[in-house]
Amino acid sequence: MKDKILELLNEKKYNSLFELLLECNAVDLAFLMGELENEDMIKIFRLLSKDSAAEVFSYMEPDDQERLISLFSDRELHKIIDEMYFDDTVDLVSEMPAFVVKRILKTAAPEQRRLINEFLQYPDDSAGSLMTIEFVDLKSHMSVEQAIEKIRAEGIDKETIYTCYVLDDTRQLIGIVDIKDLLTAGFDTPVSELMQTSVITAHTLENKEDVARRINKYDLLALPVVDRENRLVGIITIDDAVEVIEEETAADFEKMAAITPTDESYFRTGVWRHSRSRIVWLVLSLLPNIFSGSIIAFYQSHNPALLSLTAFIPMLMGAGGNSGSQSSTMIIRGMATDEIALKDFFRAAWKELRISLLCAAVLAVVNGVRIALQYNSTLTALMVSLTMLITVITANLLGCMLPMGAKKLKIDPAIMAGPMITTVMDIASIVIYFNIAIRLLGTASRL
Amino acid sequence: MKDKILELLNEKKYNSLFELLLECNAVDLAFLMGELENEDMIKIFRLLSKDSAAEVFSYMEPDDQERLISLFSDRELHKIIDEMYFDDTVDLVSEMPAFVVKRILKTAAPEQRRLINEFLQYPDDSAGSLMTIEFVDLKSHMSVEQAIEKIRAEGIDKETIYTCYVLDDTRQLIGIVDIKDLLTAGFDTPVSELMQTSVITAHTLENKEDVARRINKYDLLALPVVDRENRLVGIITIDDAVEVIEEETAADFEKMAAITPTDESYFRTGVWRHSRSRIVWLVLSLLPNIFSGSIIAFYQSHNPALLSLTAFIPMLMGAGGNSGSQSSTMIIRGMATDEIALKDFFRAAWKELRISLLCAAVLAVVNGVRIALQYNSTLTALMVSLTMLITVITANLLGCMLPMGAKKLKIDPAIMAGPMITTVMDIASIVIYFNIAIRLLGTASRL
Repeated sequence: MKDKILELLNEKKYNSLFELLLECNAVDLAFLMGELENEDMIKIFRLLSKDSAAEVFSYMEPDDQERLISLFSDRELHKIIDEMYFDDTVDLVSEMPAFVVKRILKTAAPEQRRLINEFLQYPDDSAGSLMTIEFVDLKSHMSVEQAIEKIRAEGIDKETIYTCYVLDDTRQLIGIVDIKDLLTAGFDTPVSELMQTSVITAHTLENKEDVARRINKYDLLALPVVDRENRLVGIITIDDAVEVIEEETAADFEKMAAITPTDESYFRTGVWRHSRSRIVWLVLSLLPNIFSGSIIAFYQSHNPALLSLTAFIPMLMGAGGNSGSQSSTMIIRGMATDEIALKDFFRAAWKELRISLLCAAVLAVVNGVRIALQYNSTLTALMVSLTMLITVITANLLGCMLPMGAKKLKIDPAIMAGPMITTVMDIASIVIYFNIAIRLLGTASRL
Repeated sequence: MKDKILELLNEKKYNSLFELLLECNAVDLAFLMGELENEDMIKIFRLLSKDSAAEVFSYMEPDDQERLISLFSDRELHKIIDEMYFDDTVDLVSEMPAFVVKRILKTAAPEQRRLINEFLQYPDDSAGSLMTIEFVDLKSHMSVEQAIEKIRAEGIDKETIYTCYVLDDTRQLIGIVDIKDLLTAGFDTPVSELMQTSVITAHTLENKEDVARRINKYDLLALPVVDRENRLVGIITIDDAVEVIEEETAADFEKMAAITPTDESYFRTGVWRHSRSRIVWLVLSLLPNIFSGSIIAFYQSHNPALLSLTAFIPMLMGAGGNSGSQSSTMIIRGMATDEIALKDFFRAAWKELRISLLCAAVLAVVNGVRIALQYNSTLTALMVSLTMLITVITANLLGCMLPMGAKKLKIDPAIMAGPMITTVMDIASIVIYFNIAIRLLGTASRL
């Protein structure tokens, strides 16, 4: 498609290009725009219809938006800002550098400028930061006919008209009504008869992830957001909720792999930035291993017979780290999706204990038999199997308790996954191993 | 709320209970039903209005649904099946045991039975398995007034009426029209003037995750699904798409922690099932470590001077495993969200190479200085640092190449994360370490 568009542009066949652009989806066009040089970008943008231009613009990446704004005349900028949905405008303003923001605010209408400034006050992680103000509000005494008339008159500018909000005279939210119900009811029915009064809402300052999960849980298309006096301030639509959940999930993946999360995509993030978000965690997880070396050296000097046993350490560390990863991942995901709460602490620990007993037993037996046969030493097999048993059980319990403990202390549980638990288990498995070895060697030598 | 409901039930205050239930949200009620004993469950269910009963039922967990069906009379079962959205019915049928399915099909109307059987044919992972048949179809020659009339007449039973589908006489999909546009256009406008003809669609047999991501990418509320002849068969709504994406994400988390994914929630899955989905991977990741022991033993017997160096192995293995986890997580996520494609292989590898150079350099220097000071041995410091450098670079490159290679071979990339790369790096770091040590010790002894 890109080739076709550029071909028509080069041949100056603007009419055919205009026709082709009408057929294109806004999301695809936004992606294409990002790949074009400035000159082509602005030319194509000017060929878009007014509606479509605003939509394409709002789907573009921030750096491409900045590039395009620098090519706009003030009049063009004003028209785009005027046409965009309000939440997209607020997003745009919060992502542009100061001098671009100044220009946007200068070209915006005074009332819009006031609203933008007001909405920028909401903290980044609040429901308020996701809101848009394009919704249809009705009064309870209206008839269905009046309601539909109002939707017809206003609806064209509204982001979602599928749910309408019924307000009283002080703009307090008293109910919602689905357009589905309006359309299928008699024209004379009053809105008050159709509206649902038990409405699921959010507060402007609530955490946006909680609110996004609420929209998802109740299968809503949009959720009304109210202020402290229960006055309707805005709505959050499902597409923004899905985006929040996806961002949080991506951040969880990164945290669980010991990477400081970024909003940016993989290729758009520079090498320096990638390295910075990884190196701190690598150094941190190295610290405990400084001790692992000293611990091994300490035990070895204590009893030279232990020297030959170090060959089994990597395997034991691996089993401990992997079991710990498994249980911590399950617990962290369970907490992220609200299935596991802090009050389930003992229930989860009890479950992990039983799971670990089963897993540990299998690993210990398989491994014990293998070592007994390979090295022809029951004592070595016993030492390794016993360590395996205790290490895996410890790993599962820690994998369950560390993330839950972190949550209790209001630390993000996700950083307790993978590398963190692996590092803890590295130390733990060495200590467990040598302690078992010393005891068994002692007993064996006394026999 | 649960207490209040049970209280009213025990006091037989059915009228107040009926009023209270009207105010309750279906999702919350479905959850509550699951917590009740059979007797209370069916009593409360019978107090629900017809619409609400079907909605609550479709939000319930499969085992609770099965419990409730066993309490239903045939008449009640028929009514619920009749009232439910078709996609929920198909879901239900595919999750119930055979004897329940038989009963459901027996009570369903003949036409519905035929459709259920037809929809059950779609493979589990296909777009067809997500479809529902409740949509409004229009003809292009209809006027807006006629269209709205048809929606008003049919709409009440339709899952989504926000987008209407324009079909020709052979039921081929020729366009879509938003109800927003119908409502805000003049009554005499023909539908053909309002409809968009470039429609994003899916095929019945396409992979459902791809289709769900398409719905998300283009911010759609519903996506039409067509058969090979471009005839409209059904639609997929955004709530089902979000659920698919969430399931896939959960599965990715589990695979990346080396756990065979299950659909069930954490607490609902039994200890046996949990253990089974973990143990295979634990044993598999143990296998290479059998060699790590032998490799260490081999090098040690080859050169006794290496014996004292084993104390550094855990740290080197840790750094390799953690770096590998970081890069594999980034690559796997990038591929899952379609940001990184197979054709980006060299671009990604080049990026990881540069990131790893920076990270490895920092780790090598920090560690080298530490060891030089702590052990007063430049040679040891040099050996460890050099190993660190090569191990971390190898880990990042493998973390990038293994998942991409897996994808190329049509293996799920997610299993190449965490435990898998850690295990590979365990072996790799030992081999790298001893090889460097032997060379440096050799050089040192010749000096």
